[in-house]
Amino acid sequence: MTAPSAASSTSAPSTSATSNPAPSTSATSNPAPSSDAAFLTDFHHVATIGATDNDGVDRQALTPEDKQTRDWMRAWAEDKGFEVRVDAIGNMFACLEFVPDAPFVLIGSHLDSQPLGGRFDGAYGVISALFAALRVKESIAESGQVPRFNLAVVNWFNEEGGRFAPSIMGSSVYAGLFGLREMLAVEDLEGTSVAEALNAIGYNGTDTPPEAISYAEIHIEQGRILEREATNIGVVESSWYTQKLDIDVLGEQSHTGATAMADRHDALVAGSKVVLAVADVVKEFEDEALVSSVGQHVVEPNSPIVVPRRVHMVADLRSSDPAVVIAARDSLRKQIADIARDHDITINVEDFDVRDKRYFPEAGVELAEKAVANEGLSIRRLETMAGHDSVAMNHRVPAVMMFVPSVDGVSHCEREFTTDEDMVRGLGVLTNVATELVAGELSDVRDGEIWVGKSVAEARA
Amino acid sequence: MTAPSAASSTSAPSTSATSNPAPSTSATSNPAPSSDAAFLTDFHHVATIGATDNDGVDRQALTPEDKQTRDWMRAWAEDKGFEVRVDAIGNMFACLEFVPDAPFVLIGSHLDSQPLGGRFDGAYGVISALFAALRVKESIAESGQVPRFNLAVVNWFNEEGGRFAPSIMGSSVYAGLFGLREMLAVEDLEGTSVAEALNAIGYNGTDTPPEAISYAEIHIEQGRILEREATNIGVVESSWYTQKLDIDVLGEQSHTGATAMADRHDALVAGSKVVLAVADVVKEFEDEALVSSVGQHVVEPNSPIVVPRRVHMVADLRSSDPAVVIAARDSLRKQIADIARDHDITINVEDFDVRDKRYFPEAGVELAEKAVANEGLSIRRLETMAGHDSVAMNHRVPAVMMFVPSVDGVSHCEREFTTDEDMVRGLGVLTNVATELVAGELSDVRDGEIWVGKSVAEARA
Repeated sequence: MTAPSAASSTSAPSTSATSNPAPSTSATSNPAPSSDAAFLTDFHHVATIGATDNDGVDRQALTPEDKQTRDWMRAWAEDKGFEVRVDAIGNMFACLEFVPDAPFVLIGSHLDSQPLGGRFDGAYGVISALFAALRVKESIAESGQVPRFNLAVVNWFNEEGGRFAPSIMGSSVYAGLFGLREMLAVEDLEGTSVAEALNAIGYNGTDTPPEAISYAEIHIEQGRILEREATNIGVVESSWYTQKLDIDVLGEQSHTGATAMADRHDALVAGSKVVLAVADVVKEFEDEALVSSVGQHVVEPNSPIVVPRRVHMVADLRSSDPAVVIAARDSLRKQIADIARDHDITINVEDFDVRDKRYFPEAGVELAEKAVANEGLSIRRLETMAGHDSVAMNHRVPAVMMFVPSVDGVSHCEREFTTDEDMVRGLGVLTNVATELVAGELSDVRDGEIWVGKSVAEARA
Repeated sequence: MTAPSAASSTSAPSTSATSNPAPSTSATSNPAPSSDAAFLTDFHHVATIGATDNDGVDRQALTPEDKQTRDWMRAWAEDKGFEVRVDAIGNMFACLEFVPDAPFVLIGSHLDSQPLGGRFDGAYGVISALFAALRVKESIAESGQVPRFNLAVVNWFNEEGGRFAPSIMGSSVYAGLFGLREMLAVEDLEGTSVAEALNAIGYNGTDTPPEAISYAEIHIEQGRILEREATNIGVVESSWYTQKLDIDVLGEQSHTGATAMADRHDALVAGSKVVLAVADVVKEFEDEALVSSVGQHVVEPNSPIVVPRRVHMVADLRSSDPAVVIAARDSLRKQIADIARDHDITINVEDFDVRDKRYFPEAGVELAEKAVANEGLSIRRLETMAGHDSVAMNHRVPAVMMFVPSVDGVSHCEREFTTDEDMVRGLGVLTNVATELVAGELSDVRDGEIWVGKSVAEARA
């Protein structure tokens, strides 16, 4: 099933070192601990935790499956000589201290998934960061050259936000964007708080997290650009402007079989018009300038023979251009007010989780380009439509965000796929970037104070 | 709060026997066990079980609150000398055996409610049946005249169908319309089966239910006709033709922030069009000739940043005219096929819970009219849009279905209301009907074999 076993079973001529790095690094049955083969073995092992019927995983934040991946990471890291710390929001840091008291380069992503999600989203970033860190450690041990900074691999808490909203929670608390106490009080749909759920799986940590000097992350693209252009690596220049709308449609509960149509105030009928308004608002702009959706949508009381009294939904609006999101949001508020009036019901709409378009530091983009050149691969610059932990971290320290190709561009589903070959290429690039970061690269971007990614206003000025 | 306390605290001249039957029957602090005052006290006591903030009740089938009302009924009935039996589907029968081995007249309704439902729907019918039976027992004891049949009060399992679909489950199993084993295997949205839930509250009975000879039920109207026409009692001539559609919208899960709009197969967008098609199909017919709704609607995976892969919903269609429902159903299937094609997704549609329009026996309608005349009240004939246990029972034995007025016609919501005065009037009428039924009325409708309500085809022939 995994590359190592395939490689050890045959010496077919097609596994040449340049075209297929995965099998080339090891053809023994006991690959070196930091080898590509070991990386692929471990990656595919972690994919069995919370595995679903159709090759996906279901490891929502703080579930038993999330605990299993956390336990796996802890055991792996401690076995390799990392010191594992867990902070109060459940972020895990596997630390390598080369220089006492120096700050840390952080590399990583997240091990939690969407419900029936893919096995690459997040997990690829954490596991490749573990192997990149191990390789950096080995290089330092071999060369005897002490670097400028320490290195830690991070598994951020609740990047996905499927169970506990908002998403990108752990890295945003670390970066100071969300309050710790407020996030610990967030509840899932069953009324379980983050604090209770952390306690339940034993990851309510008390450790002081390592102090970051810079951050790097590698992730699957979740789009089709790299695949279409046959490019190995993407480096992110900026993140899209995003916001959510909390929409609460309040009708009147009545009997489906005994209430005249004229007497009804059906929350689901009005709510369905809201869903379609959210979908159709993209037509007010250029093709694909805006993406919109309603992903969460709960009907009450949800009985086959009761006219619904309430629909609570969350709409998601994203664009590279902040003005497009703002115009779409204004148009939707107006349309929703009209729907409420037509149905003589109340619809409350609130903005939340507004995330400004932000630029990653140019020096970090160039660092990634240099690392890719070192590996003999191809690269292009792009934007990220999706949120990532790197977007939060980029508020606090200079961050580098890189992508590997996604087959068909699909994500947040079981069909999500990236080839072993592309994963191994990304690991090589991340190792290069981490080596440069611990040597001091990007640290001067701080310019004497905490560096923040440029906002739209700053970039335009 | 209840009539008895008001009556016992004053002898105001307004409480005359003819205009206000509730307080007139008892002005003592210990009303007679079968008095109107005792009935109202017990009715309002049961309304405290599972009471909600706004005067409703939440007692879905086989919940702890449903168990409490069942325990209350058992204690009440045993205290008054009834023998309580529970059958394999959890129907409760409080039996009075006057004539050994004779069949039973059944009277009753259901104690379960919708989520955030009203306190009158069903409970009024069971509690008034308990008091009507007690009065019949007392009359027989006083007169010494042995009736022709025995009498039992029934609390049917799961009339509402909010937790376990389909509705009208217990009486339909009793009447032979649904299979016992099939219904015991039905699961709620959490995957708990009827059998497991019956076990959990200790109402998985093993008693043989009493054999019915006839059936009577009184219920709130859940409509506005009686109130608008200032009529005391409605008697049901026929039930509407109803059917449900199980609609499963199967799209593709993807990332709300990383999937181009053109690449999406959003189940909720397509599902919202289905909801609106169900609402709008009524416009193809005369005003209020058809009522339609979607009451149950579940989105998967229901995460704020995932494009939904599935919407599962139940649509409900009802009309006095079967041809209207059939035409609406055909139109919807065509429209839904078009929606599926437009969105390049699968939508499976299945008919279920089809209930033919059926007529109640004319002799039963006339029996109710005679009882109302005996009580000096007014009556009119009408149809029922809503399903009732009496509709199922009318397949097996001749059934009489009566209504008392509903304020504003609202039902399946906390605001549901019927006055104490109207409830007491209905109790008097039900007592009259039960007295006639145990004396032998309607039993000749059987005509030597099991009587079935006339179907549409039979009535037209």
